[in-house]
Amino acid sequence: MKKEFSLNAIIGALRGVLPPNRDFIPLHEPCFYGNEWNYVKECLDSGWVSSAGNYVGRFEQLLADYTGIKHAVAVVNGTAALHIGLQLAGVTAGDEVLIPALTFVATANAVSYGGAIPHFADSAESTLGLDPGKLDSYLQEVARVNLQGCFNQKSGRRIKAAVPMHTFGHPVDMEPLVEVCRKYRLELIEDAAESLGSFYQGCHTGSWGRVSILSFNGNKIVTTGGGGAIMTNDKCLAGQARHLTTQAKLPHRWSFNHDRLGYNYRMPNINAALGCAQMEQLPEFVRKKRALAARYREALAAIEGAEVFMESSQARSNYWLNVLLLNKNYSDQRDNLLALSNSQGIMTRPAWTLMPELPIYRNCPRMDLKTAADLEKRIVNLPSSAYL
Amino acid sequence: MKKEFSLNAIIGALRGVLPPNRDFIPLHEPCFYGNEWNYVKECLDSGWVSSAGNYVGRFEQLLADYTGIKHAVAVVNGTAALHIGLQLAGVTAGDEVLIPALTFVATANAVSYGGAIPHFADSAESTLGLDPGKLDSYLQEVARVNLQGCFNQKSGRRIKAAVPMHTFGHPVDMEPLVEVCRKYRLELIEDAAESLGSFYQGCHTGSWGRVSILSFNGNKIVTTGGGGAIMTNDKCLAGQARHLTTQAKLPHRWSFNHDRLGYNYRMPNINAALGCAQMEQLPEFVRKKRALAARYREALAAIEGAEVFMESSQARSNYWLNVLLLNKNYSDQRDNLLALSNSQGIMTRPAWTLMPELPIYRNCPRMDLKTAADLEKRIVNLPSSAYL
Repeated sequence: MKKEFSLNAIIGALRGVLPPNRDFIPLHEPCFYGNEWNYVKECLDSGWVSSAGNYVGRFEQLLADYTGIKHAVAVVNGTAALHIGLQLAGVTAGDEVLIPALTFVATANAVSYGGAIPHFADSAESTLGLDPGKLDSYLQEVARVNLQGCFNQKSGRRIKAAVPMHTFGHPVDMEPLVEVCRKYRLELIEDAAESLGSFYQGCHTGSWGRVSILSFNGNKIVTTGGGGAIMTNDKCLAGQARHLTTQAKLPHRWSFNHDRLGYNYRMPNINAALGCAQMEQLPEFVRKKRALAARYREALAAIEGAEVFMESSQARSNYWLNVLLLNKNYSDQRDNLLALSNSQGIMTRPAWTLMPELPIYRNCPRMDLKTAADLEKRIVNLPSSAYL
Repeated sequence: MKKEFSLNAIIGALRGVLPPNRDFIPLHEPCFYGNEWNYVKECLDSGWVSSAGNYVGRFEQLLADYTGIKHAVAVVNGTAALHIGLQLAGVTAGDEVLIPALTFVATANAVSYGGAIPHFADSAESTLGLDPGKLDSYLQEVARVNLQGCFNQKSGRRIKAAVPMHTFGHPVDMEPLVEVCRKYRLELIEDAAESLGSFYQGCHTGSWGRVSILSFNGNKIVTTGGGGAIMTNDKCLAGQARHLTTQAKLPHRWSFNHDRLGYNYRMPNINAALGCAQMEQLPEFVRKKRALAARYREALAAIEGAEVFMESSQARSNYWLNVLLLNKNYSDQRDNLLALSNSQGIMTRPAWTLMPELPIYRNCPRMDLKTAADLEKRIVNLPSSAYL
């Protein structure tokens, strides 16, 4: 028999999981338990702190080895990675790109940087990410596919790509999504910014897209201070990624020639040194975070109307940020729960504002977003650092 | 009586200045002689390696104190700083921006990112940077100024801004350039990527522009691995810079609202920690680099047809990269000198390819570029690390 829903009951359950005697528990803090100092010091001692140093290559190899995706190109952050990833997949100005309405603004901004237009898609309640079935029905209705690609019959613009984002670490249902992308001739680019350490059908997230991206921002499961990576199995695309992120400079002993518009996006060596040490600990971080999720689930199982979101049967999630999902009857209590927990030093956070509710994205095309709008009202992120 | 011009005489003179018994002398290496390790370790110990940490604020204050420019906003690199700086100065898509033809490609690329068009200007032999007198004559001829601003009569586009770049650390002749900008209603944005530590009429480079930028790439006088800063005396613009570089997120305890298209451009704390230690040593770096320039000058003074470029009377240069300037009669020897010195382990480099010679900038508007073209053929950069 469950306890009746109350904010105090929820806070009490969280306190049972979280360490006692701490004034403030942040949402996500990094853990530097490994070779962080050694590698960063070695990097400083070598004098090579910038992009020329060899930790960048080591970090990229560690990413490739762990994910099973052949090539990694380390860059300054996940936003930069997605900006380039979209270019590599052939997205150009005036194209539409399908992205979830429920995502961090960087996904939409990266689409905008190149002059493309975000086209917002609904989420699945089972994964918190893009809903392949609903997307299929929607495209059936609005899209026309011909030799030139997929076109939005309403706007007349080409729909070039779909960018699933693995929300809070939980893998999107990729198998049917790959099928939808094939059917409508859409490039698939995975935004795996939050899902390093998450697998779907035994393969790492990011393995399905022609290009995928990772993020190593300070709040991610593995951090380089700020950082990201472009991931791909295509050697040629990886070469292009390296070229575009180093100002498109052609190799020469001394001459400066640049054959297209390039970017200053490569990751500095000192950040990669930190990343190498962090990657060594990733399996342990994943193990701890999965254990934390199980403890949250157990503690909250006793309370009516609040549950911890768990991975689907095909997924093995990194549980980057744990999700407390309020029952629909209690979604009006979300802000009260946020206010109470934050005032008591337990940092919690709602999901992001739906993209089409931001003034800059108000006029972008979208499908019906019922599930995303519903989830947005009910999600509360819980403290999820690996050391908890 | 000078020695006759010969490549071997030049190499010999360089060897007299450079440390003996070194197989390879790079163009520019950082020096980590100060608190680098202490600060980076403190940063790792605190757990705050990302943009939330307090070294970012300290680094910004050190930059403001040293340059005398009131506000500094630390970002991921100089290219990102210029991209945002142009936006802050009101440059929009379709505007033309006057930049030197003789510059690193990042200056032109930053203009392009926002959809503006580089308009190339000639250099002065006395500073290696924009020639204010020639620019004035040119604008007299091609520009029309009205209440809406300055317009290129040929293209019909607005010329919104001028971006002088302080080449290899040598300040542009700013006093007449400020006058030209006033006369033609151009915003002035200084690209001081290479000139941290360089002063003009006693004020730090970057003090004249409404917005200016710095770079802390691995080859710069002060490095943060990769980094840059937006500098301005305008508090409101500094606030906008902070906002635009953090995804334009509006402050709130937990809600995600973004009021315009923003960027993920802030400098991570670990890079700022490195920068704080480097800034403490900047006066010493400048002193050493000025002494190195004097030694180069003396050594090469004995050889006919080759001289070391020295600061103008109004400038006090950081001599970021020393410039060996070949006499016009010997410009055909530049590539031979590059080949010989590099093959002997003394790293040298030519100036950048003129921007309008790159395919991407071939069709951009330009004035006559005689001096820039001439300088480009005669410049050879010499090893310039502070420890030399």
